[in-house]
Amino acid sequence: MKIKVVKNILTRNEGQAQLNRSLFAKEKTLCINMMSSPGAGKTTLLERTIDELKTVFNIGVIEGDLMTSRDAERINSHGVSVVQINTEGGCHLSADMVYKAMEEFNIKGLDIIIIENVGNLVCPGVFDLGEDFKVVVSSVPEGDDKPLKYPMMFSEAKACILNKVDLIPYTNFNMNSFFNDVYSLNPRIKIFQVSALTGEGMDDWYSWLGDEIAWKTKKQLAK
Amino acid sequence: MKIKVVKNILTRNEGQAQLNRSLFAKEKTLCINMMSSPGAGKTTLLERTIDELKTVFNIGVIEGDLMTSRDAERINSHGVSVVQINTEGGCHLSADMVYKAMEEFNIKGLDIIIIENVGNLVCPGVFDLGEDFKVVVSSVPEGDDKPLKYPMMFSEAKACILNKVDLIPYTNFNMNSFFNDVYSLNPRIKIFQVSALTGEGMDDWYSWLGDEIAWKTKKQLAK
Repeated sequence: MKIKVVKNILTRNEGQAQLNRSLFAKEKTLCINMMSSPGAGKTTLLERTIDELKTVFNIGVIEGDLMTSRDAERINSHGVSVVQINTEGGCHLSADMVYKAMEEFNIKGLDIIIIENVGNLVCPGVFDLGEDFKVVVSSVPEGDDKPLKYPMMFSEAKACILNKVDLIPYTNFNMNSFFNDVYSLNPRIKIFQVSALTGEGMDDWYSWLGDEIAWKTKKQLAK
Repeated sequence: MKIKVVKNILTRNEGQAQLNRSLFAKEKTLCINMMSSPGAGKTTLLERTIDELKTVFNIGVIEGDLMTSRDAERINSHGVSVVQINTEGGCHLSADMVYKAMEEFNIKGLDIIIIENVGNLVCPGVFDLGEDFKVVVSSVPEGDDKPLKYPMMFSEAKACILNKVDLIPYTNFNMNSFFNDVYSLNPRIKIFQVSALTGEGMDDWYSWLGDEIAWKTKKQLAK
């Protein structure tokens, strides 16, 4: 009974995700689904990414949280369109929540929509939102053992951002072990080592994401 | 439909949780349910706690993880009984998983069973395991904004362990803000500031937990 219902929920979600995906394709808007544990630094990472890319691209952000609109307020102060979704305790975003959020801003003309999912390294991985690809953010203080303990996030993402590398000297984080485990789950994944706080390593991420947006929007980038 | 089934699952879980609770009461075994984000440091905290308390109390540990038995191996090396539950992707432990795990070791004579839940700051909060109380572990690098963003964990726990305080100098963590937010959700909660890595602040936690075990087991502690 439980399994059947979960299957129905996933099937219904998949249908809406396909509709979202068609809309993104039609509008030539790249959509990325950013996922991580609570406190891995997604919002800080987004703030810097927005500041870097907003002069070149039109950016929209969908903020997913159980409660509060703190993250949306932070993003809003950077001068881009942002919609907050409060799941009221729900552990992940679903495709219909994203669809409804998109009605709040004009997708026409947006080059990229970044979805910041609920902070949760388990449940969001199961729900397709219609995004072009997933990005998993992991952070040094969480420890190097997270990929094998939460494999789905890492095996399904196109890119992995390892954040808070400025804290490496104060932890027992083993970089080789982390890289080996991530590649064992997903040999083609792109890994970025950054500190969203200090800005270290962020240029590679901006450049890679800019190329992805340009590819989807067919915009020519001034290099 | 979805809501009805979720309700049924929770009702069934509640029934099993009551059975677990009766068993813990009959055996005079304290059971605590430890929850946190992935990588907040539950296992390191447990390793130190076990080393400190195992000469006085008989300790059993139930380790919940999606995959791998790494944490159980770590705990096992400290010479206490440990059972690993792999949820195979499931985002939380349930009361029947705990009941089955208890069949693996002899609860008779155990003074405390510590359940390390799946690393997830959302879903485990909804599932009663029959524990005496919940402990939420938060860690400095996750940021001071977590209590209001994930309020259920903090409002339902009897104790909150703020781990990794050794990293405060390298972050923008605001201790006053964290304390105010936690107390606003739960005025009676006991908060410990510790570093499970360095051992800082752990004595208060050992002492408090020892008192809780002694109260449940009616054992007299040599002070």
